[in-house]
Amino acid sequence: MALPAQAVMTTEEVQSFLDKVFEQAMHIRIEAIGPGTSRCRLPFDARHLRPGGTVSGPSMFQLADCALYAMILGTLGPVALAVTTNLNINFLRKPGPRDLFGECRSLKFGSRLVVGEVALYSDGDPEMVAHATGTYSIPPR
Amino acid sequence: MALPAQAVMTTEEVQSFLDKVFEQAMHIRIEAIGPGTSRCRLPFDARHLRPGGTVSGPSMFQLADCALYAMILGTLGPVALAVTTNLNINFLRKPGPRDLFGECRSLKFGSRLVVGEVALYSDGDPEMVAHATGTYSIPPR
Amino acid sequence: MALPAQAVMTTEEVQSFLDKVFEQAMHIRIEAIGPGTSRCRLPFDARHLRPGGTVSGPSMFQLADCALYAMILGTLGPVALAVTTNLNINFLRKPGPRDLFGECRSLKFGSRLVVGEVALYSDGDPEMVAHATGTYSIPPR
Amino acid sequence: MALPAQAVMTTEEVQSFLDKVFEQAMHIRIEAIGPGTSRCRLPFDARHLRPGGTVSGPSMFQLADCALYAMILGTLGPVALAVTTNLNINFLRKPGPRDLFGECRSLKFGSRLVVGEVALYSDGDPEMVAHATGTYSIPPR
Repeated sequence: MALPAQAVMTTEEVQSFLDKVFEQAMHIRIEAIGPGTSRCRLPFDARHLRPGGTVSGPSMFQLADCALYAMILGTLGPVALAVTTNLNINFLRKPGPRDLFGECRSLKFGSRLVVGEVALYSDGDPEMVAHATGTYSIPPR
Repeated sequence: MALPAQAVMTTEEVQSFLDKVFEQAMHIRIEAIGPGTSRCRLPFDARHLRPGGTVSGPSMFQLADCALYAMILGTLGPVALAVTTNLNINFLRKPGPRDLFGECRSLKFGSRLVVGEVALYSDGDPEMVAHATGTYSIPPR
Repeated sequence: MALPAQAVMTTEEVQSFLDKVFEQAMHIRIEAIGPGTSRCRLPFDARHLRPGGTVSGPSMFQLADCALYAMILGTLGPVALAVTTNLNINFLRKPGPRDLFGECRSLKFGSRLVVGEVALYSDGDPEMVAHATGTYSIPPR
Repeated sequence: MALPAQAVMTTEEVQSFLDKVFEQAMHIRIEAIGPGTSRCRLPFDARHLRPGGTVSGPSMFQLADCALYAMILGTLGPVALAVTTNLNINFLRKPGPRDLFGECRSLKFGSRLVVGEVALYSDGDPEMVAHATGTYSIPPR
């Protein structure tokens, strides 16, 4: 399907939707939403650390997955039952003990499947720290 | 390289190593370690929930990643700096609000790269809920 | 959905279907079909070689993809329009200049998505040479 | 490692190297090589077709894999023994019966592992038809 000319939910609406859906587990901040795009921030938290002071793999996975979901919400509106079916992540460099960003864009926006990619960056560093591609299944409406 | 005839660390040693490395973030229990294999349990915790009472994707990712690392530790001994370079996960069914298990086996145990697969099961259910394959890079020794 | 008690197409029927669909490109032999499983053989052919006398990556990809499709056909019957949406392959060891086998089993057989894994072996060698997981999208019927 | 300021092999040198290495199997044209980038073309050929007149998955896999290898050659110079360790591909849209392009860029250029992504396009169509990420292992030098 064609992407809408602009996102159908605001950044604040997506944040509010995700805060409600994930309750206490939602540490991620939605920073920007566009048609087929999102930008999310994982604030630095010592609990996400791995040895060497780096953000953990599961935290990076969570940021990538959340950025994909936020991108879908901004394009389709509130779809509570969209689910991740596949996520592939390459860890490229050790991120430092700083906030992480996930920049997401859709690669395909189908009626049943949405595929997107997410580039993860450590705050203040232009080198990508991880790259993910993922697929969400959209329930029939 | 050939796998050793038996694991070089006990289940308790792997648990103790991971508890120390991950400190407060380590909720996962190491249940069995063999040469090129591991079995790990993620105790059910309401904080890992997604809408619908299911365990979250990031929690399943963490269990898969930990099972791979435990398998490597049991085969190589304590290698603190092994890092995940790639993890691909397919989410197959919604797990219920119960403990999850990860059954891991190595597919290749090279001197520089270890590739393994992890089958994830919900306690008491024979159907696989997720399947992951991952690669760890082993530092030169 | 539940797998049928036995395959709904014979090995010969799957071979004939694929030979017709892929015409001259179909070098792969279907050796066994079961409910949610298949076994396929890629006969050795010098054209599939890479430097060092090993079977090429694209040939291994083709064998994995074909084994997934054959498994789906055996379970669903002739579905010409099923398409691969994702395939992830780990290359583990260099196969020798011999026939390759792909052993496929389904991980999830949904009404819209089928996920399966394929283990690839070089004829006469017990070590896996590659491992793939893939997803097919099944058209509405 | 840092990418060089410009590619260390020309487009013609990479083509000649690959033609020699793959002999008769090499249908792909190298169109551009830069530091950490490549652009390759798979000329349309009825033998790569799938039902419906679309280019086959294995052909798209081959184009993605070749674009990654060409990118590595252009950055490192002739490394005959670099091998693909992982390739993940998402098929997004059916390409038409036309030439395909693969646009490759490196995500990480390490001394042991190179990770890159490849966007595949059908000639004359701005929509991506497939997206791949892959890892090559570089032998010690």
